[in-house]
Amino acid sequence: MTKKQGIKVVTIGGGSSYTPELVEGFIKRYEQVPVRELWLVDIEAGHQKLEIVGALARRMVKKAGVDLTIYTTLDRKKALQGADFVTTQLRVGLLDARIIDERIPLQHGIIGQETNGAGGLFKALRTIPVLLDIAKDIVTYCPNAWLINFTNPAGLVTEALLRYSAHQKVIGVCNVPYNMHQSIASMLGVEKDSVSIDFAGLNHLVFGTHVYVDGEDVTDAVLELLSDPEMALSMKNIAPLPWGRTFLKALGLVPCPYHRYYYQTKKILEEELRAFHSGHTRAEVVKTLETELFQLYESEDLHVKPPQLEQRGGAYYSDVACNVIASIVNDTRDVQVLNVRNNGSIRELPEDAVVEVNCIVGKHGPTPLSMGALPIHVHGLLQQIKSYEQVAAKAAVTGSYEQALLAMAIHPLVPDEELAETVLKEMLAAHKAYLPQFFSETK
Amino acid sequence: MTKKQGIKVVTIGGGSSYTPELVEGFIKRYEQVPVRELWLVDIEAGHQKLEIVGALARRMVKKAGVDLTIYTTLDRKKALQGADFVTTQLRVGLLDARIIDERIPLQHGIIGQETNGAGGLFKALRTIPVLLDIAKDIVTYCPNAWLINFTNPAGLVTEALLRYSAHQKVIGVCNVPYNMHQSIASMLGVEKDSVSIDFAGLNHLVFGTHVYVDGEDVTDAVLELLSDPEMALSMKNIAPLPWGRTFLKALGLVPCPYHRYYYQTKKILEEELRAFHSGHTRAEVVKTLETELFQLYESEDLHVKPPQLEQRGGAYYSDVACNVIASIVNDTRDVQVLNVRNNGSIRELPEDAVVEVNCIVGKHGPTPLSMGALPIHVHGLLQQIKSYEQVAAKAAVTGSYEQALLAMAIHPLVPDEELAETVLKEMLAAHKAYLPQFFSETK
Amino acid sequence: MTKKQGIKVVTIGGGSSYTPELVEGFIKRYEQVPVRELWLVDIEAGHQKLEIVGALARRMVKKAGVDLTIYTTLDRKKALQGADFVTTQLRVGLLDARIIDERIPLQHGIIGQETNGAGGLFKALRTIPVLLDIAKDIVTYCPNAWLINFTNPAGLVTEALLRYSAHQKVIGVCNVPYNMHQSIASMLGVEKDSVSIDFAGLNHLVFGTHVYVDGEDVTDAVLELLSDPEMALSMKNIAPLPWGRTFLKALGLVPCPYHRYYYQTKKILEEELRAFHSGHTRAEVVKTLETELFQLYESEDLHVKPPQLEQRGGAYYSDVACNVIASIVNDTRDVQVLNVRNNGSIRELPEDAVVEVNCIVGKHGPTPLSMGALPIHVHGLLQQIKSYEQVAAKAAVTGSYEQALLAMAIHPLVPDEELAETVLKEMLAAHKAYLPQFFSETK
Amino acid sequence: MTKKQGIKVVTIGGGSSYTPELVEGFIKRYEQVPVRELWLVDIEAGHQKLEIVGALARRMVKKAGVDLTIYTTLDRKKALQGADFVTTQLRVGLLDARIIDERIPLQHGIIGQETNGAGGLFKALRTIPVLLDIAKDIVTYCPNAWLINFTNPAGLVTEALLRYSAHQKVIGVCNVPYNMHQSIASMLGVEKDSVSIDFAGLNHLVFGTHVYVDGEDVTDAVLELLSDPEMALSMKNIAPLPWGRTFLKALGLVPCPYHRYYYQTKKILEEELRAFHSGHTRAEVVKTLETELFQLYESEDLHVKPPQLEQRGGAYYSDVACNVIASIVNDTRDVQVLNVRNNGSIRELPEDAVVEVNCIVGKHGPTPLSMGALPIHVHGLLQQIKSYEQVAAKAAVTGSYEQALLAMAIHPLVPDEELAETVLKEMLAAHKAYLPQFFSETK
Ligand SMILES: [Mn+2]
Ligand SMILES: [Mn+2]
Ligand SMILES: [Mn+2]
Ligand SMILES: [Mn+2]
Repeated sequence: MTKKQGIKVVTIGGGSSYTPELVEGFIKRYEQVPVRELWLVDIEAGHQKLEIVGALARRMVKKAGVDLTIYTTLDRKKALQGADFVTTQLRVGLLDARIIDERIPLQHGIIGQETNGAGGLFKALRTIPVLLDIAKDIVTYCPNAWLINFTNPAGLVTEALLRYSAHQKVIGVCNVPYNMHQSIASMLGVEKDSVSIDFAGLNHLVFGTHVYVDGEDVTDAVLELLSDPEMALSMKNIAPLPWGRTFLKALGLVPCPYHRYYYQTKKILEEELRAFHSGHTRAEVVKTLETELFQLYESEDLHVKPPQLEQRGGAYYSDVACNVIASIVNDTRDVQVLNVRNNGSIRELPEDAVVEVNCIVGKHGPTPLSMGALPIHVHGLLQQIKSYEQVAAKAAVTGSYEQALLAMAIHPLVPDEELAETVLKEMLAAHKAYLPQFFSETK
Repeated sequence: MTKKQGIKVVTIGGGSSYTPELVEGFIKRYEQVPVRELWLVDIEAGHQKLEIVGALARRMVKKAGVDLTIYTTLDRKKALQGADFVTTQLRVGLLDARIIDERIPLQHGIIGQETNGAGGLFKALRTIPVLLDIAKDIVTYCPNAWLINFTNPAGLVTEALLRYSAHQKVIGVCNVPYNMHQSIASMLGVEKDSVSIDFAGLNHLVFGTHVYVDGEDVTDAVLELLSDPEMALSMKNIAPLPWGRTFLKALGLVPCPYHRYYYQTKKILEEELRAFHSGHTRAEVVKTLETELFQLYESEDLHVKPPQLEQRGGAYYSDVACNVIASIVNDTRDVQVLNVRNNGSIRELPEDAVVEVNCIVGKHGPTPLSMGALPIHVHGLLQQIKSYEQVAAKAAVTGSYEQALLAMAIHPLVPDEELAETVLKEMLAAHKAYLPQFFSETK
Repeated sequence: MTKKQGIKVVTIGGGSSYTPELVEGFIKRYEQVPVRELWLVDIEAGHQKLEIVGALARRMVKKAGVDLTIYTTLDRKKALQGADFVTTQLRVGLLDARIIDERIPLQHGIIGQETNGAGGLFKALRTIPVLLDIAKDIVTYCPNAWLINFTNPAGLVTEALLRYSAHQKVIGVCNVPYNMHQSIASMLGVEKDSVSIDFAGLNHLVFGTHVYVDGEDVTDAVLELLSDPEMALSMKNIAPLPWGRTFLKALGLVPCPYHRYYYQTKKILEEELRAFHSGHTRAEVVKTLETELFQLYESEDLHVKPPQLEQRGGAYYSDVACNVIASIVNDTRDVQVLNVRNNGSIRELPEDAVVEVNCIVGKHGPTPLSMGALPIHVHGLLQQIKSYEQVAAKAAVTGSYEQALLAMAIHPLVPDEELAETVLKEMLAAHKAYLPQFFSETK
Repeated sequence: MTKKQGIKVVTIGGGSSYTPELVEGFIKRYEQVPVRELWLVDIEAGHQKLEIVGALARRMVKKAGVDLTIYTTLDRKKALQGADFVTTQLRVGLLDARIIDERIPLQHGIIGQETNGAGGLFKALRTIPVLLDIAKDIVTYCPNAWLINFTNPAGLVTEALLRYSAHQKVIGVCNVPYNMHQSIASMLGVEKDSVSIDFAGLNHLVFGTHVYVDGEDVTDAVLELLSDPEMALSMKNIAPLPWGRTFLKALGLVPCPYHRYYYQTKKILEEELRAFHSGHTRAEVVKTLETELFQLYESEDLHVKPPQLEQRGGAYYSDVACNVIASIVNDTRDVQVLNVRNNGSIRELPEDAVVEVNCIVGKHGPTPLSMGALPIHVHGLLQQIKSYEQVAAKAAVTGSYEQALLAMAIHPLVPDEELAETVLKEMLAAHKAYLPQFFSETK
């Protein structure tokens, strides 16, 4: 990989509705990161969408006038040859699987969600074997490539990759810290560049431990603003509902939106049950949005990323990914928030666990910063989710029913081991087609 | 303290209905541990009960024919002079406070229990300042004495004492491991002495990590038996309801009865709510039992511990305490399960945290054994409860509303920070008389 | 293994002059530990000595009138079948190799000694592959047997076994703590049984962190006595020369005799150089002693362990080994000082490192006690020797010249990397016959 | 502190011969870091030199035409008022004390050196109380100022400040990593900017763990070059004599020049003894150089830093300090190598120890990077020196003879506890005037 020769990127799950954002990202940064080849790879079931997205991408590139060739293919191995970066944004079982992940737990009165609880567990069980397979191909076809994983649950998937794959150049990315950064700047009414935030925790469970504006610590002011209902309502990336003022003050850290699943379990569950009964869980809503998006994408007159994509959720994912790629290509050594092996960065978590944390990113990849001690009152939650993730990763790799049951039962959003087994059985049956490791003959 | 001179024991909360068991314990072990003076200390409000219990104790001693003088007094400082052992079994606010601890949380749909969740937190907030006061007096009047704490939540109280008291000769005791040992032997149909168990965890959250019969590891067989509904029903000290068979196998450790609060939260809550609505929470039941016990105790014809005391719960507490005292006095260096500072014994918990673990006990006190690694799937729960305990201890000592809210909100049995604050406020108001640290003027 | 059936012990290196002590140990403890078969195994080169020792052992057993059959054999695999305990006391290359270990380093002006420095390194390089081979046979022929290793450097050898062998029932033993216990009791003029000592450290680098007499801490008094030249001279097991009084007080721990190599390097080196120049290094002295011992052993009139054996050094080794065996057989759970995996017992050393520390010993083997924090001023030395041991073990297993050079160069008794390489080359050449791993064709 | 208002710097020990380099540094970087006031502070004994240096500084500023006022004063408190940065480059006892630090140990046949061994210990004992005093004044007069310590032994002094001072905005600096960076680039024949190095260790005991050129790992090539005698001779900042080729390869890390004291002790000692016997120890050489430098400084015709200063040693110290100041002022968040609290950055060293490590530096100071695991073969040496430093810091603060003896005796360059005490006594006597803590009446 050299800048002169140009960069080759392979995107697995290239038929995703997100791809136009990624293409836009590469176009915008073409000077810094000359991506010359973008290979969009998908599976047979996604062939049609792949071609729609590929055609749009080609129109976008043409309009922008950059020297970037878009390839679409179902042949992953061919695509991977000599790649510099591989990004993964696939969804095993598509949105229909996600609908199951949401509805079965809710039917039993517990949270059903894409990345947390029983739903997140099953997304991980379906996804991890596929990612490990991709990593194996990378070892064969492009061992020097960085694997940049977008696929959720991104922290758990990265944990599994770094624990069970021979390929170790793996980075997990998420837009949560990016969006928090932006929202906090806007909440404070200052430029984004003047704000810096120390992030530490796990994916979808990351805390802003300190917020600085021009080097001055303004964490307390941010916590005060976050508990203001007016502010919260308008800042949907931080939290759609306000936090208790005294609670936030006592917490002393800026929570991410997903912390509500753990600190406001009861209220979130009530909301979800409402959606469940009205037949409009998040996956069901998204499925409708996607259909509309693909209708838009088909139009020959569309030459740019349509503004409707931002509704889809996941906005700025491509910014996060493009920034990592840019810093590696240019050896920038700037600070970004990524999922990497802990290495003592967060002292309360195991050395070899994957954490989401401030890193500097240069040519030889990300190096986490030593974040110092987190307050005692968050050690428990972090360790609990990390324990769950490690058990879940083991279940995904081994196809062990016992490990899957353990993962389910120790998850804080699953309040009973018997119920855990009931839900586990139903979900295993519902997702059987995507969980061969649990149903192989020879086990 | 020498065996020749005889031992002086001071029991704070001496008017408790448990005292006859303790007296019986000292009588039974008189040869090994010649307790010559037993001082029963209580407060003005417990004066009458103290005298009833004291009189029974004197009749018991007389009947047994041992040289043991029973003193009853309200003057703690006088009692403590030159003591060798101080045992604490006091209950701040008596059973009426416990009824509040149970009913307020249940009223809000969350678990209300003596040592877990919101109820356990408030018991800790009332108890810790009193225990720290006692420890201060010990420093002044009998600095070489061992403080053996029975008062619940015993692990959290010991954590607070070892963290905030100048007196460091402190041991927390509980009968749970003792009862598990006994129940498991009986379940296996073997002599108790042939069974040895590795215990590791926290108080009321302790695991049997390995069970041996005559040195052979029989842990799997025990787990199998524990998931047998027939067996479980008859083994009430282990668990009143059965555990899932696959869950226990996957867990790979013998849970204690209190683990049901965390692994079977939903079912326990349903049970508790039934009791709540019928007006028969555990505290309410116990209060009736206590009244009956004291009627028995008053009888001049009673010269022994009445069998009805075993119904009360807490059976064998005195055996546990007497065993510790005997091993210290006789430098026995045998293995007992106690609450002590971790010191690396359980590697996944902080070095300075109090844990419940196998120790050898000799003249210079207990030394924990290095228990090796616990499986990853229990790290989270243990760390979460330990985090809670450390925040709760801080709240109890400082009287900080914020810390109390944090302790409540991070407890896994309290599923929402807003609800946490509601319950906190109600309970603070209800227990105001026993929580001066939260209501002092000068704060 | 049951007591009723009797115990089978296999002793590798059975032709050693130490064997009569071991036989005496089994005879003395026959009631507690009924050893019915003792297999003495040696190699062809030691055939003659094996038969001399075997014959003496048979006369001892006959005279004692116990039911214990002595077998002598060169067939290790046959001997191991169904063994309960395997003890190893072999010496690869015999005393001639030890003479080389002492003389080559001294020739270059650095310490040459059996278990420390360059000499100890080479003893480890010769011994570890042989022990790993034995452990492999144990896995095949008697997988339930405990391997009790006497062979020096015992800590390093145990480190290598627990790190690189599939057989994990391994215990390293040494008589140093045993002798310190005895010497300290005699120095204090009290019964040995009334003294208890907390030991923590590494083999031949173990500290007495606290000494108690009847439960009272008398560590300061012991340190005071140890710096008294009169006392030191008569207590040869502790230290042949006195320690600085202020130094010992500041150290605050009771050093073992071998600590002199590190805290009195200069003086020890001067002593050794004197012995070197006079042609009487320790190995040379011992070789003469051994010849005399075997002459004694040959006498048909000898039916007991001859008193001259105590001159040989290593006295009480058999007591240490017999005590371990007795506690395992009888599930005694008493405290002994053994080399085992750390597991948090000594917090300053890695979890998986082998340490020498107080353990309780029962049927399922030794469990170390959590010793609490060691003072900061000994962390460095302990970590340094442990680092060396781990590198040395790797060198022994891999036959890597680079690792061997590293082990030599980082040892605190080897003051220069260039010199380290010079000595390394000479010693590799001198010991070539016993170091096949460094000289194999295929490397 | 704002860039607009200009920066105020106070330099304690301002009369040092190094000052012109610092002044030059501020002049060169005036655009980025507008230092408007530079206060040079010294003590009465250094009054004359202070005025010479101050006059030269004023001539330099005038010639450069920047708006920077030079103040000279003996009144430290006055100088500190409102300072933004305080740099310390004082030398308690001046070069005469350093001569003693070198000559007394060498007279006893052990290494005598400014920052290592017995000499370094005494420099620390004299310096630490003075630095703590300065830190106390900073708390009073300029609590927001960063204290940037140049004074040797810089790591140990920083350890003492972060451990015993209320002022925690402290950074220790050294030019060794800076020079290594430069030398390695020149050795490789590439631009300095294209080289990046991961540094981890302790001050004067720092390793380059990886060297990258344009993101490619070239560590092996650097180690190869470093063992080339030709190269080594011309690269005096790395090592004046070559390293063993195989040793370096096995080490796998780039040593710093000071590592020779530990890995080539014997050769260094021989060199030093030669210098000692010829009356030309380093301090003696430097003393002559200094006299000559001050003669130059007095010349009214000198308006720039004279080139002869580079002979003095310590070149580029000012670059290192100016770079830190610039990154703080401008919130640059670039990577620099500094002495800071570990915080998990180097997992093998205690969390709270001061280490020398890559940090990013922004407005709120330095944050270390998590460096990952160091190889086992360097754990011992690092822990040993860190143990020594912590004991030495305690000795310096408490004036405890016992702690000073311990520090001396556990230092790897002092090979005997008796000799340690002899040298300790002589050095205490020789430095009595500067060690009031060891000689106060009331102790
Ligand atoms: Mn995400
Ligand atoms: Mn209990
Ligand atoms: Mn030994
Ligand atoms: Mn330096």
